[in-house]
Amino acid sequence: MKQLLEKYTKDQVKKAAQIKAIFFEAVGTFTDNKIIYDESGKEIVHFSTKDGHIIRYLKKAGILVGIISARDSSVVNRRCNELGLDFCHQGILDKSSVFEKLIKHYKLRSKEVAFIGNDIDDLPVLRAAGFSACPSDGFDYLKSSVTLVTTARGGRGVVREVADLILAARGDFERILK
Amino acid sequence: MKQLLEKYTKDQVKKAAQIKAIFFEAVGTFTDNKIIYDESGKEIVHFSTKDGHIIRYLKKAGILVGIISARDSSVVNRRCNELGLDFCHQGILDKSSVFEKLIKHYKLRSKEVAFIGNDIDDLPVLRAAGFSACPSDGFDYLKSSVTLVTTARGGRGVVREVADLILAARGDFERILK
Amino acid sequence: MKQLLEKYTKDQVKKAAQIKAIFFEAVGTFTDNKIIYDESGKEIVHFSTKDGHIIRYLKKAGILVGIISARDSSVVNRRCNELGLDFCHQGILDKSSVFEKLIKHYKLRSKEVAFIGNDIDDLPVLRAAGFSACPSDGFDYLKSSVTLVTTARGGRGVVREVADLILAARGDFERILK
Amino acid sequence: MKQLLEKYTKDQVKKAAQIKAIFFEAVGTFTDNKIIYDESGKEIVHFSTKDGHIIRYLKKAGILVGIISARDSSVVNRRCNELGLDFCHQGILDKSSVFEKLIKHYKLRSKEVAFIGNDIDDLPVLRAAGFSACPSDGFDYLKSSVTLVTTARGGRGVVREVADLILAARGDFERILK
Repeated sequence: MKQLLEKYTKDQVKKAAQIKAIFFEAVGTFTDNKIIYDESGKEIVHFSTKDGHIIRYLKKAGILVGIISARDSSVVNRRCNELGLDFCHQGILDKSSVFEKLIKHYKLRSKEVAFIGNDIDDLPVLRAAGFSACPSDGFDYLKSSVTLVTTARGGRGVVREVADLILAARGDFERILK
Repeated sequence: MKQLLEKYTKDQVKKAAQIKAIFFEAVGTFTDNKIIYDESGKEIVHFSTKDGHIIRYLKKAGILVGIISARDSSVVNRRCNELGLDFCHQGILDKSSVFEKLIKHYKLRSKEVAFIGNDIDDLPVLRAAGFSACPSDGFDYLKSSVTLVTTARGGRGVVREVADLILAARGDFERILK
Repeated sequence: MKQLLEKYTKDQVKKAAQIKAIFFEAVGTFTDNKIIYDESGKEIVHFSTKDGHIIRYLKKAGILVGIISARDSSVVNRRCNELGLDFCHQGILDKSSVFEKLIKHYKLRSKEVAFIGNDIDDLPVLRAAGFSACPSDGFDYLKSSVTLVTTARGGRGVVREVADLILAARGDFERILK
Repeated sequence: MKQLLEKYTKDQVKKAAQIKAIFFEAVGTFTDNKIIYDESGKEIVHFSTKDGHIIRYLKKAGILVGIISARDSSVVNRRCNELGLDFCHQGILDKSSVFEKLIKHYKLRSKEVAFIGNDIDDLPVLRAAGFSACPSDGFDYLKSSVTLVTTARGGRGVVREVADLILAARGDFERILK
């Protein structure tokens, strides 16, 4: 997995190596940017198997994984339970204060936390996190504020891309793959 | 949000600065160009969270937002209610006359109204509106008639792109984000 | 609509001008290339509003429109009824013989019929039709045998692109748009 | 179908010519990389008609086709039955041992088996198979280990692309198309 790190700058790898927790907004990162409704009013949500697959490895590596999301969706909640995420906080309008509480609760320093967001209301948390990422189809005005703009679009492996970098930077991959 | 305006021409920014209302055809702009049916005959519709997110800001800025759509879909109607749009007129074959009535009803001048459309039957309203836009996957024969061809495809943030430009041109962003 | 024809060769326009009927395989042209199932075994199908929109104009122009499809789908059948297609023959393994019967039944010459297909079993009919088209994501080994490879992918406006060319080549557009 | 082989290297064609069985992970190859849930907890899965279409030809050519998949999905199982696949082993964590058992059961040599995978846990089987393939949107760290990186993305005709190459390399196409 050494060659995986060659795509990234020294600063990105250094920040990634310090991460002990990955938090993310669900919509537009863990899911694509679609809101899908059927005629009976039920919601349909698209996730990526790439993201799901790596959660298992993150947990093996002892990395905390959780969601801080503005929208409230029972489908996202179900996916979180299925993957065994550490928490799934939805319907959060003030993400900054939830972020601060979580850091205290888990006894983390902000430089040990990665955050992935994709819209205006994620800016404060993206600035507070030690490693910040935004998908390639996130908003231009976020891109200058984040550590990494992923090559993946929302819902197509954004969490995976950040997780792969963090696991490789921490040197976890060789151990996990055994 | 100053740099957001750098992507646009002076004429586009000038026209956007005068806008007090955004109306749009739903299909192919607010939704993608898909008609999706399941086997029981129910319709499924794809919207973008990017569009949904900005409606809140448009309303904060006092901008009127509504739909004038040829097709009639209960799913679109539900999404409009959820987002608090000012109106949702569907099943409209003569969009021009509805456009004229709405302008009168809301005491607007045509140069204060933006319209987003994507197909032949939108041409008359696109020509009447003060600011007109069409998605990047709209029809070529519309593109020479509109103020802006968005970089987004239908259902992938077309309304957002127009709204961002208008909010930035009007100088609303700084105030709203507080 | 004059400029619409500039994209095409003289041969394509000449062949398109003679067309009185458009037949097509449904899967991969009128629909995208996806087979979508939900857990209860129900099928979901994606169509394009671009295609649906132009059917109305084709009928106004007196052009016959129908489906000759290998797969049998009740969802496709429903969409055909909704759009008022002239026929919807599904579950057809020998498309050539159905094509020949339809030509006789409607008293057409093969050079007056356009056919759109996307896979191996469409080759005989594509060769027999006066105008033949295949989507950009159709198979390479079809592309050398057809009059037109559309820029649209299957389910994203393939029928529309062929219909626009035919209506423009026949000089129908100006009349219809009134 | 001669020209189909021109896209491939001599080594790829040589390895493809020896294949008597195609096995594949389902998720991200036979399906796209999406996990789709609706609000009632039901799964929705996207397949490609391109893949479905070629299964018929593979069976005509006497080639064994089956799935070895980590995830367990009733929708994938239904699609396998519909297409008449030889087996559909899902919920397989140790793919290597299942692969070895299947080879023994069907009296195959590993060089006679093609395997298509897209994620880390497919690496051992990809290395063991005589012909190995990974989709264009598979992981970079697989790509150096496989015989072929398909031009298709997962769920968009990956199995078809491998099958077309194998059928052409074996010289089966002319016979089948009759």
